[in-house]
Amino acid sequence: MSARFADRLIEGVRQKNSPLCVGLDPIPDRIPVIFGQSGSIAALEGFCQAVVEIAPRHAAILKPQLGFFEPFGPEGTRIAMAACAAAQSRAMLVLLDAKRGDIGTTAEGYARATLGPAPGFSADCVTVNPYLGRDSLEPFLAAAERDDKGVAVLVRTSNPGARDLQDLLVDGAPLWRRVAEMIAPQSDRLKGNSGWSGLMAVAGATYPEEARALREALPHALFLVPGYGAQGASARDAVAGFARGKNGLEGGVVSSSRAVLYPQAAQAATSLADWRVGIDAAMAQAAAELREACAA
Amino acid sequence: MSARFADRLIEGVRQKNSPLCVGLDPIPDRIPVIFGQSGSIAALEGFCQAVVEIAPRHAAILKPQLGFFEPFGPEGTRIAMAACAAAQSRAMLVLLDAKRGDIGTTAEGYARATLGPAPGFSADCVTVNPYLGRDSLEPFLAAAERDDKGVAVLVRTSNPGARDLQDLLVDGAPLWRRVAEMIAPQSDRLKGNSGWSGLMAVAGATYPEEARALREALPHALFLVPGYGAQGASARDAVAGFARGKNGLEGGVVSSSRAVLYPQAAQAATSLADWRVGIDAAMAQAAAELREACAA
Repeated sequence: MSARFADRLIEGVRQKNSPLCVGLDPIPDRIPVIFGQSGSIAALEGFCQAVVEIAPRHAAILKPQLGFFEPFGPEGTRIAMAACAAAQSRAMLVLLDAKRGDIGTTAEGYARATLGPAPGFSADCVTVNPYLGRDSLEPFLAAAERDDKGVAVLVRTSNPGARDLQDLLVDGAPLWRRVAEMIAPQSDRLKGNSGWSGLMAVAGATYPEEARALREALPHALFLVPGYGAQGASARDAVAGFARGKNGLEGGVVSSSRAVLYPQAAQAATSLADWRVGIDAAMAQAAAELREACAA
Repeated sequence: MSARFADRLIEGVRQKNSPLCVGLDPIPDRIPVIFGQSGSIAALEGFCQAVVEIAPRHAAILKPQLGFFEPFGPEGTRIAMAACAAAQSRAMLVLLDAKRGDIGTTAEGYARATLGPAPGFSADCVTVNPYLGRDSLEPFLAAAERDDKGVAVLVRTSNPGARDLQDLLVDGAPLWRRVAEMIAPQSDRLKGNSGWSGLMAVAGATYPEEARALREALPHALFLVPGYGAQGASARDAVAGFARGKNGLEGGVVSSSRAVLYPQAAQAATSLADWRVGIDAAMAQAAAELREACAA
C-alpha cells in the first residue's frame, strides 16, 4: 500500500476500463429470499458476501453504505467490516459511505474508526460532511495523508433536498461552490503521481452543468458521482465532470447501487447460481455504459 | 413513554433544577488508570458505567458522543448502547451525539439505528447534520413524531471552523439562520404540552448574540448548547438563547463533557471511591453554575 490512494483508484479504473463504483446498499426488503428470511442478519451477511464475490470483475471500488448496516446494531457493523475486508482481499478498493462530520478529537475518532486498522474499518476512503468547517475535515485529511487514504467531501449531492442549502447563493455563487473553494487548498496533500488527488468531491450526477463548474473549482479532485441508474441520471450526465485524458474521459468514479444489486432478472432468481448470473449481467451492463460514456 | 420528548426533557430539567446535560466523551488517554489500561476496551466500559451511576444525580440528560466509541469497532458500539440503557434505567434521557445525515432509505436506516429499539440505540434524541437538506431530516422527524423522540439539528456549532460555512451570508443573513428557517415549519410536529418542541437546535455557547437571534427564528425549539466549560463559554453565555419562564430562564440544555468527566481532583484519584467524589463534585458544580445562570 505504498501508492497514494488517488493513484490506486485511477489505476483500478483504467484496469477495469470503467469508472463503475458498486454501491453496497443492502436494503432488507429487496434482498432476495434465497439469502434468508427478509430483514434477517443472515440474509444481510449472505447477500453482501455474494455481491463482493462478483463486484471485482466489473468495478475497481466498492462503496458500502453504513446506514444500511447500523440498524442491525454491532452485528451489522461487523458484517460491514467483513464485506470491506472481503472486497480488499479481492483487490477492490473500499470507499466507506459514512458521511461523518464532527470536530477535534471526535473527528479524529471517526477518522480512526473508518480509515484506521482493526478494530477500525481499514477503508481506503470515507465520505465526510463539510457543514462544521475546515477543522472538522482536518483529522480525516491528516489520517489520509499519513496512511495513503482518500477523503470524499460532500459538495453537491444528488437528492432533491440538495437545493435547500447547497444551492443558496453566497456572493453570487452557490454554497456548494464555496465548499469546493474551502477544500481546494488541501487538494495537493492527497495528490498522487497521476496528478489526481484523493481529496475527492461528491458531485451528484443529476446536475451535469454543476459537475462541469465543480471541475473548474477542483481541477485535480477525483469525483464520486452518486445518483447514476436508479436516481435517473444518464451515463453521459454522470461523467460530465470528468476531464479528457489520452484514453477518454477520466477523473472519478460513478456509483450505482440499486440498478446493479436488484436487477429484475436477479430478483426473480430461484437459485444462487441464477442470481449470480443476473447480478453479473447487471454489473457488466453498468460498467459498459460508463465505459462507452467515457470513450465518447 | 407516552409524554412527548420535549415535555419529558423540560420536566427533567425542572426536577434537577438545572439544564446540565452530561456529555459522555470517553477520551482514551484521559480515562484514569483505575479503570484499566489506557486505551483498553475494559477501561472504556468501566469508565462509562461509573459515569452513568453518578450523572443522574445532577442532570436530566446524557449525551454520549459516538465518535469516541466507534474507534473500538462493534464492541465499542455495544458499550455505547449499554451506557445508554444504563442511563435510561436510571431515569435519564439519552441524546445520542451521532451527527448523522443522509437521504431517503439511508436516513431511515440511521433513524432506526439511533432512535429505534434494539438492535438500535433506543436513544430519546439524536443529533443530525442539515447539509443534505429537508429530505435528509424527514426520516428522523417522522420517527421522532411517531415514537415521541427528539431530533437535534446542527444549526450553529461552537468550533472555530463553524465560521467557514455556517456564517456565510445568504441574502444578508448567515447560513445558520437559513437552516433555522428551513426547520422552523416542522417545529410543531414535535411540540409538547409544555409548548416546547423536541425539534432541537444545536446552538454553540461561544456565540451568545447568535443564540438570541436563533431564539427569534425558532421560538419553541429546545436548544442543545455545546461548548460550555472546556470550550470557554460562561454559564451566562450558555443560556443566552433561553427564554424567561416563571421560574427563570429555560428552553434547552447545556452540555459539559470534559469539565465534569476529567476534573483535576478525579484525575488524581487512586481509588474508585475518591474518583466518584471528584466527579460528583464537578457535576454538582456545573449543575449549580447553570442553575444560577438561569435564576439570574
